[in-house]
Amino acid sequence: MKPPAPNTMTDIIVSPLSDDELNRMNAYWRACNYLAAGMIYLLDNPLLLTPLKPEHIKNRLLGHWGTSPGLSFVYIHINRLINKYDLNAIFLAGPGHGAPGVLAPVYLEGTYSEIYANKSEDDQGLLQFFKEFSFPGGIGSHCTPETPGSIHEGGELGYSISHAYGAAFDNPDLLVAVVVGDGEAETGPLATSWHANKFLNPIRDGAVLPILHLNGYKISNPTVLSRISHEELEQLFQGYGYTPYFVEGSDPDTMHQQMAGVLEQCVLEIRRFQDEARRTGLPTRPRWPMIVLRSPKGWTGPKEVDGHKVEGFWRSHQVPLSGVKENPAHLKMLEDWLRSYKPEELFDSNGRLIAQLKMLAPKGTRRMSANPHANGGLLRKALRLPDFRDYALALESPGKVSAENTRPLGKFLRDIMSENNSNFRVFGPDENASNKLDDIYKASKKTWLASYLPEDADGSELSPDGRVMEMLSEHTLEGWLEGYLLTGRHGFFSTYEAFVHIIDSMFNQHAKWLAMSKKVPWRASVSSLNLLITSTVWRQDHNGFTHQDPGFLDVVVNKSPSVTRIYLPPDVNCLLSVANHCLKSTDYINVIVCDKQKHLQYLDMDAAIKHCTKGIGIWEWASNDAGFEPDLVMASAGDIPTKEALAATVLLRENFPQLKIRFINVVDLYKLVPSTGHPHGLSDRDFDSLFTLDKPIIFNFHGYPWLIHRLAYRRHNHDNLHVRGYKEKGSINTPLELAIQNETDRFSLAIDAINRLPSLLVSGAHVKQKLRDQQIECRNYAYEYGIDRPEDDHWQWPY
Amino acid sequence: MKPPAPNTMTDIIVSPLSDDELNRMNAYWRACNYLAAGMIYLLDNPLLLTPLKPEHIKNRLLGHWGTSPGLSFVYIHINRLINKYDLNAIFLAGPGHGAPGVLAPVYLEGTYSEIYANKSEDDQGLLQFFKEFSFPGGIGSHCTPETPGSIHEGGELGYSISHAYGAAFDNPDLLVAVVVGDGEAETGPLATSWHANKFLNPIRDGAVLPILHLNGYKISNPTVLSRISHEELEQLFQGYGYTPYFVEGSDPDTMHQQMAGVLEQCVLEIRRFQDEARRTGLPTRPRWPMIVLRSPKGWTGPKEVDGHKVEGFWRSHQVPLSGVKENPAHLKMLEDWLRSYKPEELFDSNGRLIAQLKMLAPKGTRRMSANPHANGGLLRKALRLPDFRDYALALESPGKVSAENTRPLGKFLRDIMSENNSNFRVFGPDENASNKLDDIYKASKKTWLASYLPEDADGSELSPDGRVMEMLSEHTLEGWLEGYLLTGRHGFFSTYEAFVHIIDSMFNQHAKWLAMSKKVPWRASVSSLNLLITSTVWRQDHNGFTHQDPGFLDVVVNKSPSVTRIYLPPDVNCLLSVANHCLKSTDYINVIVCDKQKHLQYLDMDAAIKHCTKGIGIWEWASNDAGFEPDLVMASAGDIPTKEALAATVLLRENFPQLKIRFINVVDLYKLVPSTGHPHGLSDRDFDSLFTLDKPIIFNFHGYPWLIHRLAYRRHNHDNLHVRGYKEKGSINTPLELAIQNETDRFSLAIDAINRLPSLLVSGAHVKQKLRDQQIECRNYAYEYGIDRPEDDHWQWPY
Repeated sequence: MKPPAPNTMTDIIVSPLSDDELNRMNAYWRACNYLAAGMIYLLDNPLLLTPLKPEHIKNRLLGHWGTSPGLSFVYIHINRLINKYDLNAIFLAGPGHGAPGVLAPVYLEGTYSEIYANKSEDDQGLLQFFKEFSFPGGIGSHCTPETPGSIHEGGELGYSISHAYGAAFDNPDLLVAVVVGDGEAETGPLATSWHANKFLNPIRDGAVLPILHLNGYKISNPTVLSRISHEELEQLFQGYGYTPYFVEGSDPDTMHQQMAGVLEQCVLEIRRFQDEARRTGLPTRPRWPMIVLRSPKGWTGPKEVDGHKVEGFWRSHQVPLSGVKENPAHLKMLEDWLRSYKPEELFDSNGRLIAQLKMLAPKGTRRMSANPHANGGLLRKALRLPDFRDYALALESPGKVSAENTRPLGKFLRDIMSENNSNFRVFGPDENASNKLDDIYKASKKTWLASYLPEDADGSELSPDGRVMEMLSEHTLEGWLEGYLLTGRHGFFSTYEAFVHIIDSMFNQHAKWLAMSKKVPWRASVSSLNLLITSTVWRQDHNGFTHQDPGFLDVVVNKSPSVTRIYLPPDVNCLLSVANHCLKSTDYINVIVCDKQKHLQYLDMDAAIKHCTKGIGIWEWASNDAGFEPDLVMASAGDIPTKEALAATVLLRENFPQLKIRFINVVDLYKLVPSTGHPHGLSDRDFDSLFTLDKPIIFNFHGYPWLIHRLAYRRHNHDNLHVRGYKEKGSINTPLELAIQNETDRFSLAIDAINRLPSLLVSGAHVKQKLRDQQIECRNYAYEYGIDRPEDDHWQWPY
Repeated sequence: MKPPAPNTMTDIIVSPLSDDELNRMNAYWRACNYLAAGMIYLLDNPLLLTPLKPEHIKNRLLGHWGTSPGLSFVYIHINRLINKYDLNAIFLAGPGHGAPGVLAPVYLEGTYSEIYANKSEDDQGLLQFFKEFSFPGGIGSHCTPETPGSIHEGGELGYSISHAYGAAFDNPDLLVAVVVGDGEAETGPLATSWHANKFLNPIRDGAVLPILHLNGYKISNPTVLSRISHEELEQLFQGYGYTPYFVEGSDPDTMHQQMAGVLEQCVLEIRRFQDEARRTGLPTRPRWPMIVLRSPKGWTGPKEVDGHKVEGFWRSHQVPLSGVKENPAHLKMLEDWLRSYKPEELFDSNGRLIAQLKMLAPKGTRRMSANPHANGGLLRKALRLPDFRDYALALESPGKVSAENTRPLGKFLRDIMSENNSNFRVFGPDENASNKLDDIYKASKKTWLASYLPEDADGSELSPDGRVMEMLSEHTLEGWLEGYLLTGRHGFFSTYEAFVHIIDSMFNQHAKWLAMSKKVPWRASVSSLNLLITSTVWRQDHNGFTHQDPGFLDVVVNKSPSVTRIYLPPDVNCLLSVANHCLKSTDYINVIVCDKQKHLQYLDMDAAIKHCTKGIGIWEWASNDAGFEPDLVMASAGDIPTKEALAATVLLRENFPQLKIRFINVVDLYKLVPSTGHPHGLSDRDFDSLFTLDKPIIFNFHGYPWLIHRLAYRRHNHDNLHVRGYKEKGSINTPLELAIQNETDRFSLAIDAINRLPSLLVSGAHVKQKLRDQQIECRNYAYEYGIDRPEDDHWQWPY
């Protein structure tokens, strides 16, 4: 699959804009820049109808001017081509705090006023628009969920390209224009996401047009990419597999002509690649175009302030002129600057953009700010789900047979894929096979637009038509999935528990996006982000200490209860039930923790559905307190901790037949939180009826034990809650020895129980010694044979 | 600074190895590969002196064969040049689970046996070496801290290059050879870390030689970089600023000759660049060489198993032959494979590598496994610290004046830099100036080896000689700092709180490295990693919701108490005292949380030292319970929460003069943990004497409030502990309004206190109403003027 020869600059139309078009585009851009500056400074006198006075200026000057003119510049040039070619396009602004450069054209094309009536297209609306920017209760300095047309906030940097590709997948007619900040380009997630072009199919997917905005500076530093040679920069993007086109300069007229020519060339090139692939049916990877826009930071702003260079330097990053309320010279400079855009030529006497400019904007949903793809819930179709019960594992009785927990889920996902093959994708960093989800490949292969070798036919499972996304970058996968969901589709992401912390920060940002979106009435619901955490800590005994970290849940619980859900299904059927529930849900991040290895199975499908629907419950079959108040509550959350807790229950019952033990399993972790703290939280009454008011509770938890205390510290019986979990003990172990080190093993749990039951003070002593001896035997066996004793490994529920 | 013209392949010596040298090198490599395979399989018969039988095979086959032969191949070729040119070199293995390929040459050069006497250089030692690999209690499958010569475990992928550069900084004679996995190369952190060459000064720093090991596959997928064209690959690395040299093939003899020639060319080129820069004194950035080694995955292993291609395919990623204990055909294949290395020619009858091969290894500390740079504590010199008290802010009385908390720290760091200018660096992602640490630039500029513009003279603070490291990649900075510390130097990293989650995962891995290293007796202590988290949540009111996240501490507390420390100094003098303490410490990660903005100052230096030494204490000047049991404990941790808690105390005292309030401030967060849980934890007795046994505690916390419960849930008075903190409420606010939304403001805290004091049930009602009215007034003011009321903003302690 040899890519076509790269295009050359000679294809580009020189000076495509007529004088009139050039003048009008530049005027439109002046209007954008005027608005961006006005947002930062003005509290009154929005059209400068009178001389500017200190009282017109905001008390607190906030905002980022530097990147804004460049963003508007790109935006309006895309507008031109939307009109010319009836493009279906959306716009992602990667540079941080770039909102003024996006909000300005969004306002000018009318969408903002349609949605926010008080920001109408007149002087009063304009005033409100200015005032509310970066103002308490007002408009944010990023492209927040409140921003029409945004699916990418840009609060945290590095994810613009992966979001853009996620939006383009399975949207063959969509053009995703994405501006990448040159500061943002230094981040790791961004640096690898350029390779997303190896996963884009020109037939079935849309196009991504990256525009690297090389404006030279971050807060107070030059950017790396702006200070390497032209040759290196060109090689870098060629190496990433793109054809880079350069638009460089500062003179607006020249730059408009350059940009118009280059952008049109790119759009035509994209169309040519797509047409060729769609005509021939050959989904090869072309060298997609990308643009390097090298323009001054703070373009058209103050050139120099107090003897310091500002335009084209880092000093224009935020507010280029400070102290304007107090410093008359600065106030004068601000007025000169604002008037340099000639607002009187741009807005009519009511404060509305004049008609000759207004007509430059696309109409209706062709406006990037009104494109439904950027409010993906509008386009979302519910997933067609086969009946998950059809994938059930048949069980005679609980705790007798073992099975790989994730394999039936793989079959379920396979059939979901078959039923929804243009709006569902499955994501995993080179791990879907390792995670035992490889049945998925029967419905869809791994997307692959790089080269092939003959041996790939033997199990590499690659295809340009695949919809299973595998790249060894959790960042890129998470970004793709977010982009895919926010444009109205569905997805499922599985990843190794040890390394899910890599995307902590992306999880946080997406949770914030969802929480905010829920408060934005015009945003339609999008599918939940479903994240399966597998290859869990308790089976990382052989991979060692670096692979043992169940702490992602501690990050999750800090985010808004309105968008976070955590499930720990203990077996195959519970996992199926939970996954089915999650795949139907909207606007959440559903975190599912379940290991991929063979594990004991507990619930048949009917029982699993009941159990998962309640989210927490007594397992009667494992309890012997029927009709009585128990002496002890044994509780568990997670597959492996459940097995050990059950085995501990058996040890206790064997040694103390009179002991009444209640066994509780928790699937939905938020059940532990008071109902005031999370919508899933149990009432105190329900909690107390499960966990009693005063009996000891031994809780065997999948993760770090303190998390359970953090959730349950307000519960009445909290003082008797004794939690075991992973406490950062481990190196190379067997599974049982790893549990013993962390005291989550059956023996430790039984000893814990005995210690907490005063009635066993005397009779328990020799049992404890016996259990400790057992631990030593287990360890000795492991150290001799390298494996666990078969009787522990293959332990079954005996009753 | 134009880079020199790239070198060409014509410079490379063709077939530099004599037949004898070639044969011996290949024999040495065979020995490595034999060992790597032996580690995976053998429990007995280590030299294959008898036919291989099932009982010689491990019960559980663990390990990763795929990358191992390539790693050994690189290792022994570097050995050749160490000998030839007396190189001072260390080796970093980026590919995951590559330990067998490193442990093998480490064992063969004798270091392993010197350190681990039971793994002696004879058949018994070899047997033990084989047996313990990936065995309970034994040797890990990464280059763990137990591995001589390792500073990079490679458990989590993506950090090899940044670690390598960190090691090379300020080590002018050191060559850091770093093998990058082609899977690893897909990660974001790795993808941007190639740009570290723009921060390496050829005069004062050592060299990094990256070897991209293009063996084609991850677990079950091809790698992206192995499936793009040669042209794109070459362009990519040229674009990153390197000269890539290719070593490609599979025939060992040819590959040895190629690798020997290319590697020697690279070493000479590096020396030439260094010599030229050092001779002329011109620290330009050359196009440093790097190598692309394209060799088969599982090289020299089984070619085909059960009809499936294995060598050169993903099927050789882990254990290429499974079921050998049960399957005689596989056992036979294993035996053939192992015997193909002809162990009888490599080892003498005692099981020791024969002398003709032994002599290929470097001697003494020239062995990469014994180079002291890889056990950096051996080389570490204590930091020369000026007296931090000299930077104190003089205070007349507490709570009267405001100052930027971080600015005096900047002066302290400046003078530390001056005193230690070849073994101390300061790191921050484009934020040292923004974080008010810019006095540092008076001692050292920002390292910059990319191009310069005239305007940089006006405040860009760049220099090739700088030791302030700024790049907009938290990953790269963290990696550099880790590499710098692990090779025996010192550093300080400041970063924005909102985005420190980006390196959660790196923090976790470094904490695990340190915790494990502490148990390795021969590892000397290294300097602590000092991380200042600033631009904190409470001053992100204007940047909005995406910039509000104090949850990093929740990640920190999950890691081993033996290596984690958390400090929340409330003011300038406490920050200085804490920083001084941290900079002297070893083997910890010290996390310091302190905002950069102007804040009220509380303690003069003497008081600050006393307070920080205790880590927690009653502020007598803010308490009125002298000689009495208090009615209420008001506690705080963090700068802004402390101000609000003090203001709440005043509100309460004004309204209820009879109320006895004890004010406690916490600097050292681990004081809250029981002494059994952390070495800094207070005894219950001390805790109780501070917090009482039964009085209400209002605790105003910097972070998410649940963290305090997680730390203190076992304390006696926990039921009366009422914590306020950030609870994910915020958009664009003023500082006080953000606090009000999260109920950490003075009014909310006072209301909380009243609600918890039964004695105020009646008298408190109208006060509560008054306080609520105040909140509304504050909000109204903020919404009208965009700022907080001056009386709130400039609030002072009134007594």
